[in-house]
Amino acid sequence: MTSTFGQIFRITTFGESHGPAVGVILDGCPPGIPLTEAEVQHDLDRRRPGQNKLVTQRNEADAVEFLSGMFNGATTGTALAMMVRNADQNPGAYDHLKDVYRPSHADWTYQAKFGVRDHRGGGRASARETIGRVAGAAVARKMLARALGVEVLAWVSQIHSIDAKIEPDEVTLEQVEAHPTRCPDPEAAEAMSRAIQQARKKGDSLGGVVTFLARNVPAGLGEPVFDKIDADLAKAMLSLPATKGFEVGSGFAGTRMTGLTHNDPFEPGPAGTPTQTSNNSGGIQGGISSGANIHGRVAFKPTATISSEQKTVTVDGEATTLSAKGRHDPCVLPRAVPMVEAMALLVIADHWLRQRASSS
Amino acid sequence: MTSTFGQIFRITTFGESHGPAVGVILDGCPPGIPLTEAEVQHDLDRRRPGQNKLVTQRNEADAVEFLSGMFNGATTGTALAMMVRNADQNPGAYDHLKDVYRPSHADWTYQAKFGVRDHRGGGRASARETIGRVAGAAVARKMLARALGVEVLAWVSQIHSIDAKIEPDEVTLEQVEAHPTRCPDPEAAEAMSRAIQQARKKGDSLGGVVTFLARNVPAGLGEPVFDKIDADLAKAMLSLPATKGFEVGSGFAGTRMTGLTHNDPFEPGPAGTPTQTSNNSGGIQGGISSGANIHGRVAFKPTATISSEQKTVTVDGEATTLSAKGRHDPCVLPRAVPMVEAMALLVIADHWLRQRASSS
Amino acid sequence: MTSTFGQIFRITTFGESHGPAVGVILDGCPPGIPLTEAEVQHDLDRRRPGQNKLVTQRNEADAVEFLSGMFNGATTGTALAMMVRNADQNPGAYDHLKDVYRPSHADWTYQAKFGVRDHRGGGRASARETIGRVAGAAVARKMLARALGVEVLAWVSQIHSIDAKIEPDEVTLEQVEAHPTRCPDPEAAEAMSRAIQQARKKGDSLGGVVTFLARNVPAGLGEPVFDKIDADLAKAMLSLPATKGFEVGSGFAGTRMTGLTHNDPFEPGPAGTPTQTSNNSGGIQGGISSGANIHGRVAFKPTATISSEQKTVTVDGEATTLSAKGRHDPCVLPRAVPMVEAMALLVIADHWLRQRASSS
Amino acid sequence: MTSTFGQIFRITTFGESHGPAVGVILDGCPPGIPLTEAEVQHDLDRRRPGQNKLVTQRNEADAVEFLSGMFNGATTGTALAMMVRNADQNPGAYDHLKDVYRPSHADWTYQAKFGVRDHRGGGRASARETIGRVAGAAVARKMLARALGVEVLAWVSQIHSIDAKIEPDEVTLEQVEAHPTRCPDPEAAEAMSRAIQQARKKGDSLGGVVTFLARNVPAGLGEPVFDKIDADLAKAMLSLPATKGFEVGSGFAGTRMTGLTHNDPFEPGPAGTPTQTSNNSGGIQGGISSGANIHGRVAFKPTATISSEQKTVTVDGEATTLSAKGRHDPCVLPRAVPMVEAMALLVIADHWLRQRASSS
Repeated sequence: MTSTFGQIFRITTFGESHGPAVGVILDGCPPGIPLTEAEVQHDLDRRRPGQNKLVTQRNEADAVEFLSGMFNGATTGTALAMMVRNADQNPGAYDHLKDVYRPSHADWTYQAKFGVRDHRGGGRASARETIGRVAGAAVARKMLARALGVEVLAWVSQIHSIDAKIEPDEVTLEQVEAHPTRCPDPEAAEAMSRAIQQARKKGDSLGGVVTFLARNVPAGLGEPVFDKIDADLAKAMLSLPATKGFEVGSGFAGTRMTGLTHNDPFEPGPAGTPTQTSNNSGGIQGGISSGANIHGRVAFKPTATISSEQKTVTVDGEATTLSAKGRHDPCVLPRAVPMVEAMALLVIADHWLRQRASSS
Repeated sequence: MTSTFGQIFRITTFGESHGPAVGVILDGCPPGIPLTEAEVQHDLDRRRPGQNKLVTQRNEADAVEFLSGMFNGATTGTALAMMVRNADQNPGAYDHLKDVYRPSHADWTYQAKFGVRDHRGGGRASARETIGRVAGAAVARKMLARALGVEVLAWVSQIHSIDAKIEPDEVTLEQVEAHPTRCPDPEAAEAMSRAIQQARKKGDSLGGVVTFLARNVPAGLGEPVFDKIDADLAKAMLSLPATKGFEVGSGFAGTRMTGLTHNDPFEPGPAGTPTQTSNNSGGIQGGISSGANIHGRVAFKPTATISSEQKTVTVDGEATTLSAKGRHDPCVLPRAVPMVEAMALLVIADHWLRQRASSS
Repeated sequence: MTSTFGQIFRITTFGESHGPAVGVILDGCPPGIPLTEAEVQHDLDRRRPGQNKLVTQRNEADAVEFLSGMFNGATTGTALAMMVRNADQNPGAYDHLKDVYRPSHADWTYQAKFGVRDHRGGGRASARETIGRVAGAAVARKMLARALGVEVLAWVSQIHSIDAKIEPDEVTLEQVEAHPTRCPDPEAAEAMSRAIQQARKKGDSLGGVVTFLARNVPAGLGEPVFDKIDADLAKAMLSLPATKGFEVGSGFAGTRMTGLTHNDPFEPGPAGTPTQTSNNSGGIQGGISSGANIHGRVAFKPTATISSEQKTVTVDGEATTLSAKGRHDPCVLPRAVPMVEAMALLVIADHWLRQRASSS
Repeated sequence: MTSTFGQIFRITTFGESHGPAVGVILDGCPPGIPLTEAEVQHDLDRRRPGQNKLVTQRNEADAVEFLSGMFNGATTGTALAMMVRNADQNPGAYDHLKDVYRPSHADWTYQAKFGVRDHRGGGRASARETIGRVAGAAVARKMLARALGVEVLAWVSQIHSIDAKIEPDEVTLEQVEAHPTRCPDPEAAEAMSRAIQQARKKGDSLGGVVTFLARNVPAGLGEPVFDKIDADLAKAMLSLPATKGFEVGSGFAGTRMTGLTHNDPFEPGPAGTPTQTSNNSGGIQGGISSGANIHGRVAFKPTATISSEQKTVTVDGEATTLSAKGRHDPCVLPRAVPMVEAMALLVIADHWLRQRASSS
């Protein structure tokens, strides 16, 4: 199931950056959800390159087309296919990569696995593959908002050594989108912006952390053993290109607390349900949502493609050096924000449908 | 697929701590692997409680029984079922939990999800569920060692504020097992041991980090999109009780490096294959193993069960306080080591079989 | 997923006829379904050998034990494991089969696939494997009866050349169980009984057809493309030992009708829903239940194990002859009835839960 | 997984007859298989309507486009997407079906399931959905022929009351394609052709049987319990539109034989492997291929769409009559031949890859 994600609300993506098109088949989506190409396009535009000077200058319209699964402006409940044509291809730009393995890319590992690799832009390892995910998640977003009022939001909380000061429960989409870095702390955002531009000038790159938050997720989503909702979130996030870590709730920092301070006390809440007075659990206890906000963090490594010279080897096993040419992000974090949101939406959507199936 | 893990090398576990038995069905295991109950028992004994004063005093033989899938001392290639009877039950010990939700446990979330919960020991959220995982992984261990020489090892690298000093590539199983904490840094191990005993005395609990390492994993395991081997490791680890985070390679610390220092240069290696001169990638690039050691870290929160008094609510929504009684670990880290190994083994075994299916 | 069946209401079976035990893990079952071991035992007893002179004389108690997933007499919503010990083993009875491939059994194909086979009773190909299916289906039966009033019934409609005269929509369980052949046409039942006993005397065996019927299945179950409910029924039935064919509705006979007579006209039904005035569709149109009774037929070949001498080869490739010894059914049809019911129940239960997940 | 078929060699299809496009994502295909759009087109053209006077006059180019997964003329081992645009749409032609349920179609059941239906051509129930299957199977055909020399062939063996006389093991593709009916018995083919034209004139329709055969399938494919290769073939065939039955080997006729004549004796074969001297097993024993030719039969009902007047009800529950207008096949059998081949190819391809994964 390498290209498929989800048990009931399932996406299957296709496409490489330098093939004819990328896209997705969304299966298991309930019928009757009103949806327009413009709504999906809105989410796609947030991940699109070329939006500003911080991200790669590759410029593509990335216009989405519904291929199936829609009737009279709403989902039919059957396979919903969406496609985006790859418009801006310049294969010659990658000729210098034909005979060399880029360090910390998927070049060597693809060769080892498949015995062949498309040297033009990374094949399925390209961030362009995530278009299908974001398109599928746009449908999840609509479904969850209509049915449950769920809101999923992500933002850049750290780039390199710059840590933003943010009160997660109060962040708004407007604050996130207010700055090209997608960091809702304006001061940190400016510092991040400067750091990214400096890295670009040096032929270097930066990593960082994206924080995500899901509001209004009902209690009871997630399965008790392997398909814990945080386990599925972990897989979802680590399946994004360039990710190296995932935390939920208190995460690694929580390992330095003790049980007395880490445990989230309950107090009587509305409708007779228990309410946590703290949220080190990240809204998930025993793998199942508690009703509190779900929150977590995703680590993205510094972009592997840099224009500085690096040591590597050729496909024939000879030592050589490489300086990457062409378009590339010195920092993927701002564009990673909608990808992280997408993965959180897909996981929550799937677990909501699963819970409908198996409840008493 | 809540109780099933893996695509080809698949385990399906069953059992609660206070039901008749726990166990596993392992499906998709190749035929002809020699295996004895004693070999599986060896791995089970490592996760067994009551081994020493650091861990819970619950004392059970946990003797495994093969129920199917074996013939003449080797696997048949068909479903291999293994069972461990639950011997040491004292349901009355849990009566005080019948009407109250334990903070940061799965009590409230199970109630929200299922409308019912077994208050005796946590149902499927019990660490006892992992017996089935460890048993299945013992078969994976045997298979991978015989076929590929793979060795998977884990150890405690941090408890609360105590960080061990360890050279991962050189750790041995003997070093890990030399101390009850399963920390191969003897000095840190002693400090950890003291900290755990202090926490127990205070009615408090500690968390920490388990590091894992897989040696001799061939290049080419893992799938390019969703089923990246690090994504599957992330899910595997976050499906363990009490986990809050997962890192591979440089992890969150890597987000503070730059591309120039983070990228792993290649040099010509044996057999003409590229070899990394550093390993921030954690042995995985683009979701596929590179041939370098796979390594990562798993965050475990402080044990939720503590004997100190905590604020909570009753099942009827009334505010109350709770002081846990009975057996419990003040720190699960030492016993989590074989669980982390088990999950890594299961992921690698599954991806090895998948690679055999789809290679050219 | 060789030992797993179902997407949401999923069973995973284990066990061979000559290992320690057989059983099942049922996952995805909703919580709160009241259930006793006696209820499951009732269904198991219907498939048990040794019930009368028509079927194999192997005599086992086949007592089921719940291993997990139950609390206070009801399902918990988590993995429900059930086990039956194999009591009546006499491995020596199979020594004459060690070096020879039985014609039309799974002996040679197991050897070709696994490189090993358990010559004692057929390994996973044994009809004893179906105990796990019948146990899991007993839970489905309870769930579907409580929630929807669904009734699933099967019976023997043909043995060798004897065709029963039966009005499917009016058959009752009492009529089916009234005769050891499980044929509700008393005259045909007697003729079948005589034919089976004659075949036994000759060292020969007989096949036949089991018809199944599902009442009160709501309209809308089944998926439009691959997971049509009749496609899943076909797989379910062909996964039973000794089956060679499946029909739904008019089946093969329908291919000799024309559209004008084969089409099922609609007339206005209760609650404004269309009602079919005939049922060549077998209650399924476009892979989705229509609300009419679902009905179909399953072909079982003559039992492969016969005591007459047959030509075959040894495991070393030498020509030889074989006369089977020991217990065996001259006709599996009567015992196949509860197995066919079980598979129909499992498919309907799974599709009902799937429909709850994905409805608007 | 409604739109996905297969465990490793997996297709996910999309598209309705009156949406923008239909197509498929093929995942799990090994890398390095040389493939051209022309090869896939060749198989698609065999299922295309408008080939002759026997089948529907709808005329579409059905030109396939590779969207991903190809590099330098060979498969990359990653998701291979293929699309066919829907060119010949005339939605107005379906206006008369907007408010009425066609008997024995998926109209009412789609409405019951989804609460909505696309009245223009049947949505996902359209035979046009099978384009994605045939395209995916064309890759399977190439893979299996290159690696194993497997040949899969199907033909029309019965239409209405006309039974062809055919020696399955000797049929060739040329014989099948020699006549528009795809019946390799020339005399029967002519009679079938006349019967189809008569049915068309009467506003009636005919059903029949397609026989399939797979040569050179190695012994050992198929799984022992649920995923028997004949069980997967049964599901595959029953997932095709208009099918009502499936048989393997002796099928329903075999139920009237006895064990002595039905069993397939073994004799010493080439390379020391047992060879069957008859093939009532249909090349499958215990769910696993034996090395003999796999053969089976698929029942197709008379086409539901007929121009004669039929009784039915409106969407408002009123009694009415309907006479279908527009293009439609009076007999789908000739076009069903490549669909049956496609499903057999997909099943065999999947089980071959599965066997590579799990062998010793």
